[in-house]
Amino acid sequence: MPRHSLFIPDLPRAGESLNLTGDEATHALRVKRLRTGDRVRAFDGAGRVALAHVTIARRELELEIDSIERFDRLVPAIGVWSAVPKGPRVGELFEHLSQVGAASWTPMNSGRASVDPARAMTNSKMQRLARISIESMKQCHRPWRLELNKTRTFGDAIHAVGGTAIVLADCSGKAYRATGAGRIRLLVGPEGGWTKDELAAAESAGAAVSSFGPHVMRIELAAAIAAATVLDKEQSRRDP
Amino acid sequence: MPRHSLFIPDLPRAGESLNLTGDEATHALRVKRLRTGDRVRAFDGAGRVALAHVTIARRELELEIDSIERFDRLVPAIGVWSAVPKGPRVGELFEHLSQVGAASWTPMNSGRASVDPARAMTNSKMQRLARISIESMKQCHRPWRLELNKTRTFGDAIHAVGGTAIVLADCSGKAYRATGAGRIRLLVGPEGGWTKDELAAAESAGAAVSSFGPHVMRIELAAAIAAATVLDKEQSRRDP
Repeated sequence: MPRHSLFIPDLPRAGESLNLTGDEATHALRVKRLRTGDRVRAFDGAGRVALAHVTIARRELELEIDSIERFDRLVPAIGVWSAVPKGPRVGELFEHLSQVGAASWTPMNSGRASVDPARAMTNSKMQRLARISIESMKQCHRPWRLELNKTRTFGDAIHAVGGTAIVLADCSGKAYRATGAGRIRLLVGPEGGWTKDELAAAESAGAAVSSFGPHVMRIELAAAIAAATVLDKEQSRRDP
Repeated sequence: MPRHSLFIPDLPRAGESLNLTGDEATHALRVKRLRTGDRVRAFDGAGRVALAHVTIARRELELEIDSIERFDRLVPAIGVWSAVPKGPRVGELFEHLSQVGAASWTPMNSGRASVDPARAMTNSKMQRLARISIESMKQCHRPWRLELNKTRTFGDAIHAVGGTAIVLADCSGKAYRATGAGRIRLLVGPEGGWTKDELAAAESAGAAVSSFGPHVMRIELAAAIAAATVLDKEQSRRDP
């Protein structure tokens, strides 16, 4: 069992090797104190997971790839579009979505949002979330990184391209029912809820309104519970 | 829509009134700055939720109960027994379970636990969790408080009384299938997983081994996802 995981976007092939540099190398050498012969797992964040062993010479870390396994994306691909919670809770939301197996997160503006995503999603916050997606990928053993998208509006959210089913989380709906769609866009509103106009617009656009639990939840948990429920029910439908 | 919620264990009847004292009164007067005529919601934590209005005279808060509604416990009642995560993450775990609608939480010791619950669950931590259950009840609009039990062992966990189904969360299992049981005990292990002996003992005791997601999750999210999934599938089975 490898005792350390690395993120290497350009993974070489099995049998090849590479010299690791930058933050990942520094962390592996100084914090994890890897030694020659140690086995590691390496993720490229796009479906490939390698087992490798390291050689350390003159404080440089060489990685030799023993084997590579290629994983498909999870089906269905769940794109969560949600309101942005305050302060550090956006990091929790993003990390939760990574753990439950969502494909992507899109910050979304809506009528009752208490946080304006255009202001909240600064470059430094986007960079912080990108780092979370890498660390969480290693911890969860996710072959694919959780994708982070740019901010969009509720109007964008309810106009999906063909083949994408839209699900809107709201306590007025019934329990979610699997549909067999290959791509699902899941909309999670702000803690003040959706406006009447938003609910009406979503229903005319063909969105399924679904409820995901008996109580009021905070966004960072509500989004994760909704994504996990949709994924579980869709996968159970495919593989009963 | 009442703009403030109170916890009042001994709720009077509709038409009656009470003088509120202690922390709840201080918070309502000094922080929330309630005024005469304001409407509030009051929870007793045991199924009764009141609508009331306040009168403030000489800095004392009098509450007159307008109406009371009585809610049954959620069915099935889900008792989560889990490993204890490190430090403040135990508060997150407990709060998540409250939001998703679990009935109770029992800290549990097991072979690969990195935290010994007997040491971690100090009196001050138990008191902190009791406060979280009150605040979360108000935020989630849960008529019943999440119950907090004393620490038990894995051996206790797999011996349930009649009518209680035992479910053990493990990635080796299949997706959860609803059973119709009225009481479900859900076991969530430490991040190092269960030992072989524990898995074998659970299976001989008749526990259903179920998987709750494609990736490795932290306990504080894993327990919430598992409880939400079981509740959702059981409720969908009862009310299709």
